[in-house]
Amino acid sequence: MSRNKPGTVVLLTDFGQQDIFAGVLKGVIASISPESKVIDLTHEVNPQDIAQGSFLLSASYSYFPKRSVFCVIVDPGVGSDRKGICIKTNDYYFVGPDNGVLWQAANENKIKRIIHLTTKKYFLDSVSNTFHGRDIFAPVAAHISKGLEDIAILGKILEKCVEYHFPKIERNTFSLGLTIIHIDRFGNVTLNLKENQFRQFTQKRRFCLTLNDARIKEVYSSYAKAIDGELFLIGSSSGFLEISLKNSNAAKILGAKYMDKAQLKILDQ
Amino acid sequence: MSRNKPGTVVLLTDFGQQDIFAGVLKGVIASISPESKVIDLTHEVNPQDIAQGSFLLSASYSYFPKRSVFCVIVDPGVGSDRKGICIKTNDYYFVGPDNGVLWQAANENKIKRIIHLTTKKYFLDSVSNTFHGRDIFAPVAAHISKGLEDIAILGKILEKCVEYHFPKIERNTFSLGLTIIHIDRFGNVTLNLKENQFRQFTQKRRFCLTLNDARIKEVYSSYAKAIDGELFLIGSSSGFLEISLKNSNAAKILGAKYMDKAQLKILDQ
Amino acid sequence: MSRNKPGTVVLLTDFGQQDIFAGVLKGVIASISPESKVIDLTHEVNPQDIAQGSFLLSASYSYFPKRSVFCVIVDPGVGSDRKGICIKTNDYYFVGPDNGVLWQAANENKIKRIIHLTTKKYFLDSVSNTFHGRDIFAPVAAHISKGLEDIAILGKILEKCVEYHFPKIERNTFSLGLTIIHIDRFGNVTLNLKENQFRQFTQKRRFCLTLNDARIKEVYSSYAKAIDGELFLIGSSSGFLEISLKNSNAAKILGAKYMDKAQLKILDQ
Repeated sequence: MSRNKPGTVVLLTDFGQQDIFAGVLKGVIASISPESKVIDLTHEVNPQDIAQGSFLLSASYSYFPKRSVFCVIVDPGVGSDRKGICIKTNDYYFVGPDNGVLWQAANENKIKRIIHLTTKKYFLDSVSNTFHGRDIFAPVAAHISKGLEDIAILGKILEKCVEYHFPKIERNTFSLGLTIIHIDRFGNVTLNLKENQFRQFTQKRRFCLTLNDARIKEVYSSYAKAIDGELFLIGSSSGFLEISLKNSNAAKILGAKYMDKAQLKILDQ
Repeated sequence: MSRNKPGTVVLLTDFGQQDIFAGVLKGVIASISPESKVIDLTHEVNPQDIAQGSFLLSASYSYFPKRSVFCVIVDPGVGSDRKGICIKTNDYYFVGPDNGVLWQAANENKIKRIIHLTTKKYFLDSVSNTFHGRDIFAPVAAHISKGLEDIAILGKILEKCVEYHFPKIERNTFSLGLTIIHIDRFGNVTLNLKENQFRQFTQKRRFCLTLNDARIKEVYSSYAKAIDGELFLIGSSSGFLEISLKNSNAAKILGAKYMDKAQLKILDQ
Repeated sequence: MSRNKPGTVVLLTDFGQQDIFAGVLKGVIASISPESKVIDLTHEVNPQDIAQGSFLLSASYSYFPKRSVFCVIVDPGVGSDRKGICIKTNDYYFVGPDNGVLWQAANENKIKRIIHLTTKKYFLDSVSNTFHGRDIFAPVAAHISKGLEDIAILGKILEKCVEYHFPKIERNTFSLGLTIIHIDRFGNVTLNLKENQFRQFTQKRRFCLTLNDARIKEVYSSYAKAIDGELFLIGSSSGFLEISLKNSNAAKILGAKYMDKAQLKILDQ
């Protein structure tokens, strides 16, 4: 992004789309930096769900152009003393509340600098207590994408920011206690275990994943390899392990809910 | 917007997003003015709800770049003899059916000129009786954003247009009869009373807002100041008074529905 | 689209918008061709419903700028041996899985060339078994919209592709057996009969359309001509015949569901 070439602002929020919040963010950005490209990652994060926002951001950021500015608004603490921050990483900028939602993705891409947003000149003239997305985060993201050379000008340097870590895996020699961290539109159930961690743990031994009453013993490399009606594991496009059901909805059949627990056991001990 | 710099078209409709209507509008605009920027305000206005469209437009238009063209399609009378109009105001253009949906925002921004859209050269070649958004309003908005100098060329000058006013406040010395004009995704309940009107009326005296079985006696300047589980009033980002519930859904708890009535009483008489 | 003027990519998928899939497609396209315009047609095709995707594409493609690239992802067979293809037609490019979803629109616009996508240089570096939209179709669409002169470079020429035809009309002298091929947000019910086919068949004779318990005997040229509460037929903006109910939801009143059958009979025999 040279000084003359405005970049991309990527929006990830819990605003939904039945309201004007997401549209207003784009109005604000277009007013400040008319030539920036704006991309909706999604506005359907569960209201105020930092864990889900964090997962969706970390599963997708790397597919965006370098120097993209992620403007992430999942902000239960708006109007409290939680900080607004900008994190510069190896390839990207992340702007939003300092509540952990930015951390997972930023940390993966290597954090270079964290700024506490305090320079009011980069905010809207009037800042409300209820909509910092519109009044602070979108304006700051727009200014960065317009070609701000040094983000230090946005406020004060911070040594660290709030971290959000995915639910911990409970590890035993022959079993792992896992958690559902996402369910997608197709009913695919994402677990907090990367596919390569799964391969390392199972080492091609027979296994059984227990979730509610179901026992799942197969892992496939594509949906097409499964039989209709059969629950199976698959390495998903996000890198995490998923439970899937060919041409049907695994989550519904399983009665699986976000943050439910599952148990992975090695059968060949 | 100089002749050479296409501007922004902002879309506000009741088309939803599960269908192709909104996408087709963008295809039509891109065909006529490929370099115009198109922003979705929202497509989720309740079907044919002029009151809600009017509220959402007036709460958001001022955040968009000057000279933006608002293309608003909430159009229960499509195919009848209701007119299609373009309103030029101090800073913006508003294009849509003459049923009141444009009026509130246009009036606030000061109406300069109203044109009845009759010049067929700015429509699609073939105009249906069921989809004027595609055949008339989007093409006209595209032509304006492309750099039309004088909108009089679009048709005939009108002296006035249909007005939609928000539900009237019933005023007594010590009480106000209010109406719910919006409920957002988070369950915040918007009343037809501006925050500054509220301050003027209550004059720091104790008050009680009654809605269904609830009595609300607190007003805060930010969500963060409230206690979990407590219903309270707050001046929202739209300028109107809202009923809110910290980290929860006020509308659900209240059983509040769009257009329900509420009573605000002064207790210190 | 000259070499120097990137074009438009139009997205039609069954990804929904509550997830990051659609956003990631745009990230991939922006990374390859930052100046391409991207338009969402809709992401709300019923999961894996090729028939509906086919209908929505054929009802809308002609409203987009010539040389637009339609990137269509309704892909139950991802990871199987179904091919990925690009179809060049008179005015457009269609990219997606070879399962019939592209065929109806491409055929209408006259197919010029079909390419089996095999040249890996136009894919993402790493191709998953579960998300060809991200790894193959979006990258290919981005490269075409960026200004690829000859699509033969994308792979191998195919003689034909998989065809999806709308449900067949059962024809008798005085009756037609019809199928519901779409229901829109407003409850309008689309039948697999073009308005001009209807006119040709009924020849201004009295008719009766039977669907569940309802008998519909009127056809109007606009919603405005109907009486409140009356079910009627109308030529819709897609060119197909629709059942409608003025200012109300015809599908709900009828209990009509997608793919349900209806009978059209001539009464003047």
